[in-house]
This record gives sequence, structure tokens and C-alpha cells, in this order.
Amino acid sequence: MPNKPQCVASPVGLKQVELTSGFLKARQETNRRVTLPMEHEQCLRTGRIGAFRLDWKPGQPNQPHHFWDSDLAKWIEAVGYSLARNPDPQLETTVDEVIDLVVSAQQPDGYLNVFYTVVQPAKRWTNLRDMHELYCAGHLMEAAVAYYQGTGKRKLLDCLCRYADHIAATFGPNEPQKPGYCGHPEIELALMKLYRTTGNERYRDLARFFVTQRGTQPLYFNIEAAARGEDPTKWGQHPEYFQAHAPLVEQKTIEGHSVRALYLLSGAIDVAAETHDPKLWATCRRLFDNAVQKRMYITGAAGSARHGERYTYDFDLPNETAYAETCANIALALAAWRMLHVEPDGRYTDIMERALYNGIISGVSLKGDRFFYANPLAVDREALTTKSGGISAHRQEWFDCACCPPNIARLLAQVKQLIYSTSADTLYVHLYASSRVETEIGDAKIILQQQTQYPWDGKIAITLSLKAPKRFAIALRIPGWCHKPTLKVVGTKLAVKPKHGYMVIQRIWSDGDAIELILPMEAQAIVTHPQCRNNAGKVAIQRGPIVYCAEEIDNGPVFTFSIPKNAKWQAKFEPRLLGGAVTLTAKAIRRDTKGWNGDLYRSASDTATKPTAATLKLVPYCVWGNRKVGQMVVWMPLS
Amino acid sequence: MPNKPQCVASPVGLKQVELTSGFLKARQETNRRVTLPMEHEQCLRTGRIGAFRLDWKPGQPNQPHHFWDSDLAKWIEAVGYSLARNPDPQLETTVDEVIDLVVSAQQPDGYLNVFYTVVQPAKRWTNLRDMHELYCAGHLMEAAVAYYQGTGKRKLLDCLCRYADHIAATFGPNEPQKPGYCGHPEIELALMKLYRTTGNERYRDLARFFVTQRGTQPLYFNIEAAARGEDPTKWGQHPEYFQAHAPLVEQKTIEGHSVRALYLLSGAIDVAAETHDPKLWATCRRLFDNAVQKRMYITGAAGSARHGERYTYDFDLPNETAYAETCANIALALAAWRMLHVEPDGRYTDIMERALYNGIISGVSLKGDRFFYANPLAVDREALTTKSGGISAHRQEWFDCACCPPNIARLLAQVKQLIYSTSADTLYVHLYASSRVETEIGDAKIILQQQTQYPWDGKIAITLSLKAPKRFAIALRIPGWCHKPTLKVVGTKLAVKPKHGYMVIQRIWSDGDAIELILPMEAQAIVTHPQCRNNAGKVAIQRGPIVYCAEEIDNGPVFTFSIPKNAKWQAKFEPRLLGGAVTLTAKAIRRDTKGWNGDLYRSASDTATKPTAATLKLVPYCVWGNRKVGQMVVWMPLS
Repeated sequence: MPNKPQCVASPVGLKQVELTSGFLKARQETNRRVTLPMEHEQCLRTGRIGAFRLDWKPGQPNQPHHFWDSDLAKWIEAVGYSLARNPDPQLETTVDEVIDLVVSAQQPDGYLNVFYTVVQPAKRWTNLRDMHELYCAGHLMEAAVAYYQGTGKRKLLDCLCRYADHIAATFGPNEPQKPGYCGHPEIELALMKLYRTTGNERYRDLARFFVTQRGTQPLYFNIEAAARGEDPTKWGQHPEYFQAHAPLVEQKTIEGHSVRALYLLSGAIDVAAETHDPKLWATCRRLFDNAVQKRMYITGAAGSARHGERYTYDFDLPNETAYAETCANIALALAAWRMLHVEPDGRYTDIMERALYNGIISGVSLKGDRFFYANPLAVDREALTTKSGGISAHRQEWFDCACCPPNIARLLAQVKQLIYSTSADTLYVHLYASSRVETEIGDAKIILQQQTQYPWDGKIAITLSLKAPKRFAIALRIPGWCHKPTLKVVGTKLAVKPKHGYMVIQRIWSDGDAIELILPMEAQAIVTHPQCRNNAGKVAIQRGPIVYCAEEIDNGPVFTFSIPKNAKWQAKFEPRLLGGAVTLTAKAIRRDTKGWNGDLYRSASDTATKPTAATLKLVPYCVWGNRKVGQMVVWMPLS
Repeated sequence: MPNKPQCVASPVGLKQVELTSGFLKARQETNRRVTLPMEHEQCLRTGRIGAFRLDWKPGQPNQPHHFWDSDLAKWIEAVGYSLARNPDPQLETTVDEVIDLVVSAQQPDGYLNVFYTVVQPAKRWTNLRDMHELYCAGHLMEAAVAYYQGTGKRKLLDCLCRYADHIAATFGPNEPQKPGYCGHPEIELALMKLYRTTGNERYRDLARFFVTQRGTQPLYFNIEAAARGEDPTKWGQHPEYFQAHAPLVEQKTIEGHSVRALYLLSGAIDVAAETHDPKLWATCRRLFDNAVQKRMYITGAAGSARHGERYTYDFDLPNETAYAETCANIALALAAWRMLHVEPDGRYTDIMERALYNGIISGVSLKGDRFFYANPLAVDREALTTKSGGISAHRQEWFDCACCPPNIARLLAQVKQLIYSTSADTLYVHLYASSRVETEIGDAKIILQQQTQYPWDGKIAITLSLKAPKRFAIALRIPGWCHKPTLKVVGTKLAVKPKHGYMVIQRIWSDGDAIELILPMEAQAIVTHPQCRNNAGKVAIQRGPIVYCAEEIDNGPVFTFSIPKNAKWQAKFEPRLLGGAVTLTAKAIRRDTKGWNGDLYRSASDTATKPTAATLKLVPYCVWGNRKVGQMVVWMPLS
């Protein structure tokens, strides 16, 4: 563990990297062509854009909601990422107009929030706990940074710097500053982005203040509740829900609302790295470890409980009632991405990849026009929704609480930026995807190209272009799921001995040098830690980074199957199925309903109940629910 | 199926039967000595008794709740059963005073309901859907009948007949009668008790009206909602919740709030039998079959969902979130009891026994002073309650909605009446328990005594006392769980060939004749119908009528175990454990957390994750949760 945490690697710039073909490229294109325009329509239709005209009056319908600003902000952020490499003058004009409108809503003192400007103008900063005021500010800051990085345009960035200055004047340790922080963390990581973009240390210091002030006594949320005339002992939620039950550095486990917990963690990682705070960094590691070692679904999804959209307790991972909110899964991937820049270790990258290829991509339909808010790991028939208060098996066009759709849009628009990082002497390859990156190591300009069918196939061909030979390292991530990787560098076989999950190849590289990495993908049966009761006696099947599930449309009732210990899985790429995907097929065991004659329970020794062999077909979890609605299951009994 | 349904057998009278020793006797005694006095205290403490003074005034605290009357009624009913064979002058004086108070609250027109007399005096009969008005009346009728049967005292019975007359004048098919029925069925079965006790056909006809009117169009609940000025399209619940989505004879499946559904079914069985209605009887069979063949836990518990306390859909039997309300389980047992008097078939008795020995008795602590409202089949640590909105693993002293405690009290006070029935020529033995029944077959007085350690041992010794030899049949139930019963009648071995679950021994019986029935009890692994996803790959262990579970206090973390296919269970009676119980022990398989080194997921082929042998000890489910709070599980993976 670094004594003096700092970023030892940096992401490559948005304009320096491009996906060229394959799985992620297809998602990026659908996102750009379908999702972004559709979300623009939704923001228009629902009033989220018009609200910035500030012409809503009490008594009128469609009162602006206190977190609308953030939904629009995430959409602007997504467009910013997209425009970096996909110029689209018409889209850019549209967004410029939206930005003009947003900026026009800024008050003379720099304040910028629709709800508190038109609905409760006298109540600014009186309920940080519940009203998402700083959260909305944070998302607007992220949008401003992305749009600046993608287009070079500073208008929104300057506007948000003014707002950030206003916030920095309002909040802090010195009277009359308020010693408060947001009930929904987000601004911490956003301020760090603003700091990294502008270099203005005021933003870093404010982020640090928010992170360290949180949960200290007397609790700010109680002070402001008392000031509102409310009984501070009567919270709608436990302080844990807001990660305010203790100062962050004293927290042992990741708690409360999972998106909040992971946004806070992200902000804390950035603050720890930029302020070189070993205690805060140790906290980040501890909370991250707890999140991924005891509270993460195999899909990289976070947050078990619909009730409070929250983390519950260690090893509590119910499948049917998994909340596993798309936003939380994205937040976990991006927290992992931040971790690995401070401590380049494949265990972080493994988590980022796991979330990306499973619990994140599941959140949007193949066509790009429907979304899951929750991402359960097992679904029974639709009746569950109406009768048991369960989780819907239908993706939806939009939600009243529409955090997830623009969140996945911005994730897919920036996904190319997760593939590579650089340090002074190393080019890191975190993810495998056909792509091209143009970057500098020292004074040398390097172009690296990847060609691969990943995640369907583990063969990766890398070629380099350099003006002149140059000594540097290429660090290739060797995924944790891969047991027997092979590597050829410039025609020579190398033994793969990864250190912290990366195979570091240090040499003088020349123009045209080629690397061939083969990560054999075999279907593996996975078991869960014995303390997780939810998956006791069950296995899930994973191949490469892809977690599989059984859907009813392919198999009939999926809960009647069990998987033999010695199952032989046949992998097959089916180009016309689910956008092109590798499916897995094996002889499995199926319990038949024949012979039960109206019995609900029978002796296990009853021959009528003996199971028979049947073919089981699995599809990637990330594309489930794109055909006819039906049962789905990830964890199946081992027989 | 009888074309002309009628009761072919009748329960023996309350005063004719007594438990003499053993498991049920112990429960009955604890109920009498601990539960009944404690519940009296609770009714006093909470104001449920004092409310009948009708002195509550608007603005005063502790406003009488609209279902308080029913809680007190169930307690009176329980005492009535108890006094039949356990005279207790002090208790009887106490109850007489309570009854005086109840009767004093009756209005001049016969109306009797605390809430509508003191809280909303102008609103009688304006919201049958939600306000439990007829439900409370029904429970008072049951109390009146029980107290009359137990003590011979008619005061409460006469009072309730007056109230029933008032209700019969108010409700019915002929204007100005209201064509309504209660949102919470109960009065139907209560009116049938009143009919059977008084012979007054008016009560039978009113019960029939309530049963047949229900769910007909236009829906009465909409009519009354409109009359209240409410939007009838906006119900808090779906009509299914109230079993009002269709006329009962058109309903295919048992739906909605499970206690309501099963009380309605009970009333319908009685109406079908007493009015010889084949269509209604076919409906009862259909709904009962659906309830027990597709919607019943192995513990005989009913109703899967906390949300609406309701049935969900076929084969949906989640274990941790099982609602399985004690009241519903009691209602199912008593519905089965009613069924078997029309159609004496062991399949009904099997259900009654299953519910009684498992999901009903689990509802009260061994000491008789704590209660479960919900009876889940798996429980993780207490954190579940606070963080996931789960079901409590603690029994409680009382509930604001206190239906379950007096319900189990009245069930245990009348349990002896479930053991025997008689017809013109047959004495039925439904349950096995040390007991004595004194009854008549034709003109012959017969005393039958059972001696047994049931449910811990399957040996049953029966002896008869008769003044003179008499030809009649003794019908011994052969439980569905028993595979190789043996039988000796008056010293002669008889092959056991049960018909519809009963071995009918027709002969001339003489004084001193003895029967020895042996029902071998072996621990059996039980599997669930393949369509039940919740128990896929899992077994539960049952021995005799007793379903077993693993508790943390005996085993450590119970979810780490799996049960080998060839497990050899050792049964042992432990006199000092859990009130004296047979426990089961076997070598099982345990997954250890050693070697996981912080991993949450691993390859199933990883040797570090290999399970090891460990002893697993099971205790009867009905006595779980009587020691230290911890994990509990009924269904365990088969390995």
C-alpha cells in the first residue's frame, strides 16, 4: 500500500482513443445513434430542459423536481464524451442551445438550481440531507468538464466554476460558512474533476472538506433539521443511508444507499490521491474491498435491497430481489477505475470489467431504447411484479426517477477511455477491445492498435506505430478469470508472469512491433463464498468476463434445471442472436413435472421425481430480457 | 365427489374428548396456564376490554380500533373451549364479567360494534370493504357459540343472535336490504356455527347470501365507495385481495389475503354441506386443491407475500420472505377439518396435521408467552430485519394488529376436538395423541382411549370400553407420510389397506378390545414440485408429521451445509431439549470459509473450496426460535 498515495497513471485523453470495431464499439454506436437522441426527447418531453427557462409558477402543472437538473446534466456529459471523436454539428448545436439555456438560469451570485430558484426560492441550502442540491451541482460540473473536453467549449465550464466558487464561499469550516455536505454524495468527485481540469485548488479543498466533514459530530443534518423546525431525531432514513453515521475514515464497511456510497468512495479516492492522504487512502481500500469481497453480485452489481436502494450486510446477495441498480454498478466500475490509477492492480480492473460486461450493459436494451433500473439475477414470471411487489422483468423507456438512463449513456460514451492509461514510462492496457490509442510516453508519440473479438474470443493482436525506437513498458492486464494465458512479443514466446494482474513488458519498442496475447476462454462453473446463503449449492457459468444466464425462451422453465458437476459446455458464436453473442450449451439435468399427480411435496427417493437429461442453453446475462419476457436465472443448482 | 354434499361425519362434542398426556396436551396446558391469562392482560392493558364501556370520546387517547372487538372475541372463544373440560371458577367469573360488559355495549336495535358506536356513530355499514364490521360480528358469534358449548351459558349467545338478526334484517337480496358482504370474510363460517348451534335457518341463509353474493356485478364495494363520495376506481387493493374479483363459484384459484381467502373457503364448505350445493362444493374442492397442491409451504403454511399478506401465484413459495401468517395456517387446518367431514379422506387430514404440527405450533413460543405473526422457512441474522425490511426472527409479546395470538390460543384450546369424529356407524380417528373420547355410535356409548408418544413415535395403542358388544367401524387414518404401517386388532395382525387414507375396521367390538397401530417414522428427504423454483436443488427433512430445520445454535452457520443423497439420520428423543423433542443428526457436507482469502467468487473446481464432512443436527421446525436468535433453515441444498 502506498504510504503517499498519488496517481501513478492517468487515463488517456478523450480524443486520443477510439473503438474501431467489436462489442463495445457496437454499444457505443447504439448509444450515440439511439440512446442519446431518445434521451434528449425525454428531457424535452418531461420538461427537464424547459425548466431551465425558470418560468414555472406555483400552481402550474409539472413542477420541476429537485433532481431534474442532474438528469439533463448526465445527458450533456454523455454528449460531451461522444462529440470528442464523433463530430455531429447538428447535435452540437442542439446542446449548445441547451447549455445556453442552462447558463441563462444561473443567478447573479453564481447559484444554479432550477428547483430552488422557481419552487422554493427562499429555501436554498436549508435541506442538504434530502434535496440533492449539491448533487445536482456536481452533475452539472461533470457535464461542464466533459463538454469542455469533448468540444473545447468553455461556456458551461466557466458557468460551473462560478457556481463552484459560490458553493466554496457558502460551505467550509470557517463561519459564516456552513459546515454541511450533501445527503447524496456526488459533488466530491465532480469538484475533483473541476480541479483536475482547471487546476484551481479551491475545488480540491472543497471536495476534501466535504469528504472529511461528513459524519462528524454534531451531525450537520441534525443542525439543519433543527433549523427547519423539524425534530432531528426523526429522520426518514438512518444516517447510514447517507454515509453520515461516522466520519468516513472511521467507517469499516460500505453502507447505505449504494449509489451514494460509491460516489462518495470515488470522490474520496480522488481526494486521497490528490492530497496524498494515506489514512483516507486506507479507508478507500477498506471500503472498496468490503464492497467487492463481501457485497458484490457476480455481475459486478452493487446494493442488495430495493428498500432504501441500499447495501445490507456482508454476503447478503439475494438474487430475485437484487436491486443492483444500474447506477450503482456504473459507480462501482468507475470507483475501480479510479483505484487502479493510484494502485495499478488487476484486481481493480477485474472488478471494472466484471461490472462493465455484466451488470452495467444489462441496464440498456440491445436497441438502446429501454432501460433496467434494477438488475436482478433471477426473475420469475411477470406475476411477480404485480403480486409480490417484485422487480419488473421489462425494461422501460424512462423513469420518473430517471437517474439510470442518462447514467448508462454517459458510461457508454466514455467507455473507450477505460481501456488505456499511461504513466511516465508505461502504457497500460486494461481492457481488450478493438481500438486505437494515440498517446505519448515521455517525448515519444505512440500509436497502439488492438484487434480482437473480445469478449467472445480471447485472442488479442496488438501492433505499435512509433517514429523511432523507444524504451518503455507495456503493461498488459491478465484477467483474474484467465488460467493459461500465452503471449508472443515481436515473434517470441514469453512466459506470462503477471505481477499484480499485469504482465509488464519492458523493452525497446520499434515501429510495427506486434504482440499476440491469447486469453483462453473456457466456460467455468463459479461458486460463491460459503457465507453467502443465497447461492448455497449453486453455480453460475462464466466464460471470459461474461456471466451467463438461462432464459425461458431458450429452455422452457429454467428453474427446473440443475447443472452436473462434469457438464461439458459447448461455446458457439451465434451472429444473429442478441446482436451476435457466444452461447453455451451443455447436457444438464431437468426435473419433469410428469408423475407428480397433484402432489406438491414428495419423498426424494420417489422414482417419479427422478430428473432426466436435457439440453441447457445459456446466453450472456448482459443481453437478457431482449426477447420475450420470461424466467431468467444466473445461479443454478449443482447436481 | 358427492353429488349432494353433506356432512357424513360430525366432530365429537367439546366435553366428550380430552387429551391425557403428550405433545398436544402439553401445548394445551401451556395455552391454558400461560397464554390465556397473558392475553387477558394484553386485552385489558391495550383497552380492548375497556372499550366496551363505550366511554371513549373524540380527542381522547387510545381510540378503539375497528378490529379490536375481534381480538377479544377470539380470547373469549378460547376460554369457552378451555372451560369445557377444565373448570376454572375464577376464570369463568372473569369472563362472565367481560361478557356482561360486551353485552352491555349492544344497542337497542341489536347492533354491537365498539368502533362504530363510539368513533363513527353515523357511519355504520358504510364501508364493508375496509372496516371489518361484519368480521368483528362473526368473531363475536364464534365466541358466543364456544362459550355456550363450554359452559352452557347463553347470555353471549342470545346477544349475538340478536345481533345476527339485526344483520340479517340489514343485509340480503330484498330492498331495502343492502346486497353487501364483508371485505374480510369470517362471518360466513360464524353464521354457520350459529345455525348449527341454534337451528335457526335464517343464519344459514344469510351465510349463503354472503357467500354467493360476493364478487357479483355491480360490485357492492364500488356501490358503497360511490355512496361515500369516493372514486370507486381507486381501491387501495385489487378486488382479488378481498376475494371479490368474481363470484366464488367462478374462481379457479385461491387468491388475495390468505386469511380472508381461507375463512371464506371455510364458510363456503359449511354452506355447501348444509345446503347440499354440488356446484359450491366443487368450488371448495377446487380452491382447496389449489391452496394445498400449489400454494402451501411444507409446514402447512399459507400465503407467500408480506405485501398484502397474500397468496401470490402457483408454486411461488419463497422461504426467507415467506409470510405464512399464523392465522392463515390455522385457517387452512380448520378448512381441511371442515372438508374431511363432508368427504372423509386422509388427504384433508394430512393437511390439517401438517399445518398443526408445523406452521401453527411454530406461531407460539414453548413458554406460551411470545408469538410469531409470520412464519418464514429460513432466517438469516437479525440484520435482515432492520436493513432489508425482512421478517423478524424474534417472537413478540403482542402486536398492534393482534390477530395471531388469540387465534393460536383458540386453536390450541380446541385442538382436542380435531382428533375424532363420528358418523352413524363409524368412529374416525383423525389424529394420534394420548386422549380419551366418550361418544355414541347409534345407541351405544363407547369410550376409546389412545396411548402414544406421537408425534415422536408412531406406536399407538387404542383400547375400547363398551357396555355391550356392538358392530360399528373404526376408521384409523393412515398418514400419507407413512409407508409401512402395521396393525394388530384384538391380537390379530391385519394387512393395512387404507381407502382414501383411512383403514376402516368394521367388526363387532367388545369391551376391552385393543388396537395396536404402528406408523414407522423414518426421517425422509422431501423434494418440492419442479415448478417451485424456490426449493430447486433442495431437500427438507421430515419425520412423521414433523418438518425439521437447522438452527445456528446447534450447527453454526446453517447455510454452509448441504445434505448428501445417502444421509443416514439418527433420531433421538432429547427430553430436556425444547420441551422434549426428537432431534435428527447426520453426517452432512459443510463448506468452509478457510482458503477463500478474500475472494467472493471462485471456480467450482478450485480445491480450496472443496467441502468437508460435518455433523448436522436438526430440530423440529415448530419449536425453532426458542433459544438464542440465529439463522434457521428448512430447505437445504442436496449435495
